[in-house]
Amino acid sequence: MTQKVGIAGIGHAKFGKRTDATLRELAHEAVTRALEDAKINVKDIDASVIGVACEEFAAQVSPAVLVHDYVGMGNKPVFRAEAACATGSAAIQAAWSLVKAGLADVVLVVGAETMTHLGTLKATDVIARAGDTRWEYPFGTTFPSFYAMMANAHMHQYGTTREQLSMVSVKNHMYGAMNPYAHIQKAITLEEAMKSSMICYPLNLYDCCLISDGAAAVVLANEEKAKKISDTPIWLTGLGAASDTMMISERETLTELRATKIAVEKAYGMAGITSREVDVAVVHDCFTIAEIMAYEDLGFCKKGKGGKFIEEKQSYIGGKTPVNTDGGLKSKGHPLGATGVSMTIEITKQLRGEAGKRQVNGAEIGLSHNVGQIGQYCFVHIYSR
Amino acid sequence: MTQKVGIAGIGHAKFGKRTDATLRELAHEAVTRALEDAKINVKDIDASVIGVACEEFAAQVSPAVLVHDYVGMGNKPVFRAEAACATGSAAIQAAWSLVKAGLADVVLVVGAETMTHLGTLKATDVIARAGDTRWEYPFGTTFPSFYAMMANAHMHQYGTTREQLSMVSVKNHMYGAMNPYAHIQKAITLEEAMKSSMICYPLNLYDCCLISDGAAAVVLANEEKAKKISDTPIWLTGLGAASDTMMISERETLTELRATKIAVEKAYGMAGITSREVDVAVVHDCFTIAEIMAYEDLGFCKKGKGGKFIEEKQSYIGGKTPVNTDGGLKSKGHPLGATGVSMTIEITKQLRGEAGKRQVNGAEIGLSHNVGQIGQYCFVHIYSR
Repeated sequence: MTQKVGIAGIGHAKFGKRTDATLRELAHEAVTRALEDAKINVKDIDASVIGVACEEFAAQVSPAVLVHDYVGMGNKPVFRAEAACATGSAAIQAAWSLVKAGLADVVLVVGAETMTHLGTLKATDVIARAGDTRWEYPFGTTFPSFYAMMANAHMHQYGTTREQLSMVSVKNHMYGAMNPYAHIQKAITLEEAMKSSMICYPLNLYDCCLISDGAAAVVLANEEKAKKISDTPIWLTGLGAASDTMMISERETLTELRATKIAVEKAYGMAGITSREVDVAVVHDCFTIAEIMAYEDLGFCKKGKGGKFIEEKQSYIGGKTPVNTDGGLKSKGHPLGATGVSMTIEITKQLRGEAGKRQVNGAEIGLSHNVGQIGQYCFVHIYSR
Repeated sequence: MTQKVGIAGIGHAKFGKRTDATLRELAHEAVTRALEDAKINVKDIDASVIGVACEEFAAQVSPAVLVHDYVGMGNKPVFRAEAACATGSAAIQAAWSLVKAGLADVVLVVGAETMTHLGTLKATDVIARAGDTRWEYPFGTTFPSFYAMMANAHMHQYGTTREQLSMVSVKNHMYGAMNPYAHIQKAITLEEAMKSSMICYPLNLYDCCLISDGAAAVVLANEEKAKKISDTPIWLTGLGAASDTMMISERETLTELRATKIAVEKAYGMAGITSREVDVAVVHDCFTIAEIMAYEDLGFCKKGKGGKFIEEKQSYIGGKTPVNTDGGLKSKGHPLGATGVSMTIEITKQLRGEAGKRQVNGAEIGLSHNVGQIGQYCFVHIYSR
């Protein structure tokens, strides 16, 4: 049980409206880059974990082998991970377990999703059916409305403002503009963010993440293999996971995600660190309020102070804890299955010192935080050089 | 890495046309029995792995937390497994990895599916879309037609007969009639089996497994906990997994499932046994030809001799290797996500000596074989007392 598990290769497909590629082709684009980065052949890999969130988006029941086969994995074992919007991080955690359990030495993790072909309204409806389809969805709940409830509660309880929500969007678009793989590479002003059309009060268009197509891939390996494959392996030293009630109506509070607090506590404990030691983080900003709650629930600031945290630019590079230096779901995009794997890639780049203009100087410890549904899934991973 | 992983509790919901229960209610029925069997409380469990194969059957995107929450797992980690018809065994293998990797000591595995509400034709169409929806499904492939191609090839190459196919059905219905959890508890004659209506030549109605609702649950634990919880822990000593091409048109042969051969070789190797030492097996008899191929691919008889194997009753209790003593998918039913977990339950009962009229006397080593799609997934597990 003493072997570490590390990231030995990373590959990112361009996120966006990818009418040029199918699900398996997007995955192939990411895998090819991951193999190039690791300088290995697909033959060197023992098994795959494929994260595709939704058969309806894929237009394919049981979609994982479509990817596994197309990228050349042949007869090797394949596992599908699915955890709604946290599918990619569930895949990372499943792969980590396979390696740690000794069932594989080197595992390919692929996250992929195609969504834009359905259009925004239909895609929003598909995602809404990740809410309880018997007891909540029939009454009109959607994910913008779930998070709008949380935003209203947070504003009411802690005085968080619409300006502060928009500030999250401005930051993430600024970093997204520096990320060549981001869906929308365009900086926006606070005025633009504030004036965009209302989706579900208090969340307007710029408070909501994108509907995107995309894929991301990483090679995970045990300590021996990771060191052999990579000159700069990044170690996954802490893993936390937690869940919450299926229905929002059964939550005790709307101003925090309980699953985040439980998952991060486990992850910090396992890695032997505290929130203060995190040099860079990627968090689940499906809506701007989600990033503000994440600051608090991950311990970057006190409960209720998330709005102040962004207002003081503490989540910018140079601030206390730089967050979503890749543009986040907001600007980079959120192809469900790919997102968690893409988070791992950003942290890996930061800890390798390969993040270019977005580099957090001297970053040694990173954190990724990926939420499925409205906290029915939460995965937190801690990474170190 | 020296700790074994064992089965410390089992619970089976009745398979059948369960108009009385929803997905989560079926799961609850199985989990309640598993906890009773283990004599533990849900509070004693660290995490869950939920196997639900298909969001379309569940009428729920991301269906796992629906179950996890309803059975009382609360904020604990939840993972969904999905591997088409092998979903249940993928869940077992994921749970085994979680325990072995040290992320959990005691894991609840639940497999569940509701299918009958869609009706046979619609359900068959949903399953057909687990085949490649771009390159094969549009041309009319369904799972009966995939397996009919294999049956025709096997008959042509090895002289396997329609009578031999029907004999598999007769055996499995005989054992299913002794299983109180089976969907159809009715013995049939060879004449009845032979005369049933043709579905896709050479497979007639009695060559095809059932469309069923159902759930099954097991408690998996590390060695220390398993021994503490159960007086008769059953150990999972060998695990194998493999895959194959997404398209049947790319297979080199139709008379075997390559994934079965690779997965079983790994599982035997890991457990340190050969096929001769298997006292009882449950195999994936989605169609009768699949059971005949399984005899061969698992090494119970030589290639091409599977027809002879059933004709000589070698797969009956008292024969060389008793197979599908619980009635198999054919008679017990095949609620996709539940099947693999149900397989684990039957082997556990056999090795505990609790299989009643279906008991294989003195069974010490068991095997389960679960196939997803047409061998895109195959999981083989070896169990011992």
